[in-house]
Amino acid sequence: MNRPNIVILGAGYGGIMTAAKLQKKLSADNANITLVNKHSYHYQTTWLHENAAGTLHHDRTRMEVDSVIDTNKINFVQDTVTGIDPDNKKVSLLNDELSYDYLVIGLGFEAATFGIQGLLENAFTINSINSARLIRQHIEYNFAKYNNEKDKKQERLNLVVGGAGFTGIEFVGELANRVPELCKEYDVPRENVRIINVEAAPTALPGFDPELVEYAMNSLEARGVEFKIGAMIKEVTSDKLVYEQDEEIEEIPTNTVVWAAGVRGNTLVEEAGFESNRGRTPVRDDLRPNGYDDVFIVGDCALIMNEETERPYPPTAQIAIQEAEHTAENLKRIVEGNDHLEPFTPNIQGTVASLGHNDAIGVIFDDKKIYGWSATAMKKIIDNRYLLKLGGPGLVLRKGKLNFFK
Amino acid sequence: MNRPNIVILGAGYGGIMTAAKLQKKLSADNANITLVNKHSYHYQTTWLHENAAGTLHHDRTRMEVDSVIDTNKINFVQDTVTGIDPDNKKVSLLNDELSYDYLVIGLGFEAATFGIQGLLENAFTINSINSARLIRQHIEYNFAKYNNEKDKKQERLNLVVGGAGFTGIEFVGELANRVPELCKEYDVPRENVRIINVEAAPTALPGFDPELVEYAMNSLEARGVEFKIGAMIKEVTSDKLVYEQDEEIEEIPTNTVVWAAGVRGNTLVEEAGFESNRGRTPVRDDLRPNGYDDVFIVGDCALIMNEETERPYPPTAQIAIQEAEHTAENLKRIVEGNDHLEPFTPNIQGTVASLGHNDAIGVIFDDKKIYGWSATAMKKIIDNRYLLKLGGPGLVLRKGKLNFFK
Repeated sequence: MNRPNIVILGAGYGGIMTAAKLQKKLSADNANITLVNKHSYHYQTTWLHENAAGTLHHDRTRMEVDSVIDTNKINFVQDTVTGIDPDNKKVSLLNDELSYDYLVIGLGFEAATFGIQGLLENAFTINSINSARLIRQHIEYNFAKYNNEKDKKQERLNLVVGGAGFTGIEFVGELANRVPELCKEYDVPRENVRIINVEAAPTALPGFDPELVEYAMNSLEARGVEFKIGAMIKEVTSDKLVYEQDEEIEEIPTNTVVWAAGVRGNTLVEEAGFESNRGRTPVRDDLRPNGYDDVFIVGDCALIMNEETERPYPPTAQIAIQEAEHTAENLKRIVEGNDHLEPFTPNIQGTVASLGHNDAIGVIFDDKKIYGWSATAMKKIIDNRYLLKLGGPGLVLRKGKLNFFK
Repeated sequence: MNRPNIVILGAGYGGIMTAAKLQKKLSADNANITLVNKHSYHYQTTWLHENAAGTLHHDRTRMEVDSVIDTNKINFVQDTVTGIDPDNKKVSLLNDELSYDYLVIGLGFEAATFGIQGLLENAFTINSINSARLIRQHIEYNFAKYNNEKDKKQERLNLVVGGAGFTGIEFVGELANRVPELCKEYDVPRENVRIINVEAAPTALPGFDPELVEYAMNSLEARGVEFKIGAMIKEVTSDKLVYEQDEEIEEIPTNTVVWAAGVRGNTLVEEAGFESNRGRTPVRDDLRPNGYDDVFIVGDCALIMNEETERPYPPTAQIAIQEAEHTAENLKRIVEGNDHLEPFTPNIQGTVASLGHNDAIGVIFDDKKIYGWSATAMKKIIDNRYLLKLGGPGLVLRKGKLNFFK
């Protein structure tokens, strides 16, 4: 084949890392590489909860694609993917259509709402720069309105987060840091504000070590977070949330529900006809879906099983990045005529959840538990390592989290 | 009379300056002085348009009452005035009632809406710290929402200011500086945003020298402000403004109407039974209303005539401050048993309108016109002089506008 067309969809963790690695591994003489993304920028999804709380500016979280990708080597198309046709090897964009010889799908997640009434219409989700800064402004606006009304509305100051999984816990941790600042800014007494985390499972952070869960809940409760555990959300309206706990129906008056309880793969992947379960497509060990040898799926749309636990690996940035690096290597082999593709196995190096800017919990080296400052530092090290891989030391200096004492 | 009770209502320019001067002129042995104010802080009403635009933080505009008033000498009561009964020499507060021997009313202005349909419900006014920061957040929230909607709503980006008088012009000047920052923050193209100033009179800045008006309009138009002059606002709804110009009815889709076109005195002054015209009470030359020798009115609720023009003096900070200083002196005389009160004449030293943070126009020394940097500097000098009078050099250093090159 002469200079195959490689098209990469999405510049999230999976897509942009595939592109960054390919531009090193292949020259423009070997392949035409095209990267498609809705925005001109890449962003770190795992930092968005900080942008949403208002504790980190979103410009720290995003970077222009052309600041990490050499657009002389890779053709960057800023457009929105509207459809994938794997049988005809075509991708529809809002303003164009592309043909490919090899396709890498890195289209990321969507919120899964499990059919909860009113959730889609009334809850916010943390899934983009746009949605994160809207949450920040929505919360601020409600604080600003509070003192402008004769009858003070408690629903403006009740901040409810649906889900005490990884994202939910990280977000309430940031809120716990942010709320005292908002109270000062808008002359609102701190004791009037509630941060409420509602979780359907019988524990916060399901899947985490119970000792770490206890540490996290203590740390957050000490900063004013209330937990409703084993509480199933039934309905969300513009001014309240209804949940069921211990067979009782309860209501919380609130204008602000942030849904952080479930993700699914991208609808476009289902619509393309790949076998899939809520937008996640089971892939073979080389990350190709059954029946398509010219398609690779990386990141949240790929479903791979953990053979030890017999459950799917969770959709994490860490795995998406490893899948991308792996796929770049396999594409290089294909372009060079080598038909032996390497099988992929995730290498989970550690999982750290922040609890605000000065506390965290995590597990590293398989089973070592860490807390507090060392966990916060480890989280920053992990984030900086990603930037180092993606754009080298310059990117770490521009966008990294370098202050380990804050 | 033994240690008379002097009660001052309101800690705006008039009220707080009366208190500040009285605490120097009288000792606690001579009089019981009580200052009543809704908030714990005093603020500079003439800076609120900057807080509302988001170009100056409201904490620069306000100061705690007890940071400028010695609460060992003056009793400060944080409460809301609900009624004045001048015949029984009583003032009702939300949580208390006070008796007085002498009363100083400095309750400030309210927005005059001239019965325009929907104005009260749908337009914002710049009249307090609370309302100013709500405007700032309202504008930001609409920018944040813009990119989160599939069908982009132009009404989120059309900022309409009702009135091209002093406050209206100063506010659009700040908006012209602020909008490019908001565009950057929320990824909105500058050309999508409109700043529209609607004025019913046949000119902007009615009463100003035509040459200065021309300069001001040119400066603002160059920064993207659109003027609708001779345009009468007919109706405001939550998503549009309707006006009539040249006998045509026109609509502007907008979620943001800021009403800066009319003020009136405080309703409480009318309700107290003083002769009054839209909340402004005609006062004798010693600032006492007809029939009440124990009441002084300072600031926006006092109506005094300019004998040269045969029109009332406009309600400005400059005059309120002079009235307060004058009233403090007259109260000292009364307390000391001197029944000759000095008559008051405003001494207009200059009027400067800012056009954003780097341009201004004004008239000083009766008829000298100033523009640009010298006018901006003069504005800052005037503001700093007030702080010097109120709280001495320390207050100028804390709250003054000291950077003359920005």
